[in-house]
Amino acid sequence: MDRKDNVSVTVIRRLPKYHRYLGDLIEKGVERISSQEFSALIGFTASQIRQDLNNFGGFGQQGYGYNVKDLEKELSRILGLHMNYNAVVVGAGHLGQAISNYKGFEDAGFNIIALADTDPAMIGKELHGKPVVDFNELPKYMKEHDIKIGIITVPKTQAQAVSYKLIQGGATGIWNFAPTDITVPGEVVLENVRLNDSLFVLSYFLKEADAKRGQSKK
Amino acid sequence: MDRKDNVSVTVIRRLPKYHRYLGDLIEKGVERISSQEFSALIGFTASQIRQDLNNFGGFGQQGYGYNVKDLEKELSRILGLHMNYNAVVVGAGHLGQAISNYKGFEDAGFNIIALADTDPAMIGKELHGKPVVDFNELPKYMKEHDIKIGIITVPKTQAQAVSYKLIQGGATGIWNFAPTDITVPGEVVLENVRLNDSLFVLSYFLKEADAKRGQSKK
Repeated sequence: MDRKDNVSVTVIRRLPKYHRYLGDLIEKGVERISSQEFSALIGFTASQIRQDLNNFGGFGQQGYGYNVKDLEKELSRILGLHMNYNAVVVGAGHLGQAISNYKGFEDAGFNIIALADTDPAMIGKELHGKPVVDFNELPKYMKEHDIKIGIITVPKTQAQAVSYKLIQGGATGIWNFAPTDITVPGEVVLENVRLNDSLFVLSYFLKEADAKRGQSKK
Repeated sequence: MDRKDNVSVTVIRRLPKYHRYLGDLIEKGVERISSQEFSALIGFTASQIRQDLNNFGGFGQQGYGYNVKDLEKELSRILGLHMNYNAVVVGAGHLGQAISNYKGFEDAGFNIIALADTDPAMIGKELHGKPVVDFNELPKYMKEHDIKIGIITVPKTQAQAVSYKLIQGGATGIWNFAPTDITVPGEVVLENVRLNDSLFVLSYFLKEADAKRGQSKK
């Protein structure tokens, strides 16, 4: 399959949505879809869909459209969902436990095999079958268990120090839930989840909607 | 303060980052900052910063830059963080509990006062001081407690039904964590958190980085 280099991050960020909609179509038994039909469903223009997918080779066929199963399989491959990574969640609090226990991540090839914390009361425990390891011994543990992915769920003041420790343990990827920007070496892949930012955007539009309704807030 | 109508969503989505960096500057005791200095810090161009903020009135002063505290206060107001909303988390699982227990959301004016679930074993319990109410009686509970915000943490197959129930209870805003697109009436504000999408993007860049390193994956 041909693939253009330097596909823009904006395009990459749209791929999971294509993948999600294709999965829904498969569940509904739909076998093929035109870019026009796909457009009406997903809310991107047909031309954008064609452009986006052309970055990775042409999947559609003139007069036929896209084969749903084939396209989903291709997108899974492009997204690297066939790969397997061992991961550790740093921070065994509520969010860390929620993430470590969420089955959906396994479908993406991320196997969370442990949590790490500094709290002596937590270290050595098992949470939903996963051990809580001593944060200070994390680099050693990561190397022993071939863990390449770290998921950061600690408070923002500790996030940078945690990322250093993860990289010391050989992390090639970090998924950061702490509401702060961390710095990592260029070869380490960093993806941030900004729950606060998302809530602030909700807050903005709520305020705008309230103003439109002309209501005064309680 | 002058304010242009129809500020683009792209600009709105940048505002929380400005707000976050301004908060960090305040913590560090920085009183004023030029758009050039702010640019170096936040990674947007100085001209973009000026453009973004000009949508809401001009906050900078020629030769002075921005007053950090004033700008932070203005952005808080623009984002509606001074407002107060009562919220309910639907789905009392791990993610729902993590969200209901996260203090950061109160700073944004969202007071989570209850969780809702269909599980008889959960209904009537208290989780971290918050009651778990019967999902089927949620509209009544929402009206009695002036709850306008619903946070959806149920599996994707149930998300749409949950949103109907929330709207029945008078919800004006929905924060959706279910990995699916839900439909809401135009006057209801919907913000999605796409944890799976974020993880898929991480997966993509990990695959790309692995390919660059020329390693074969285990």
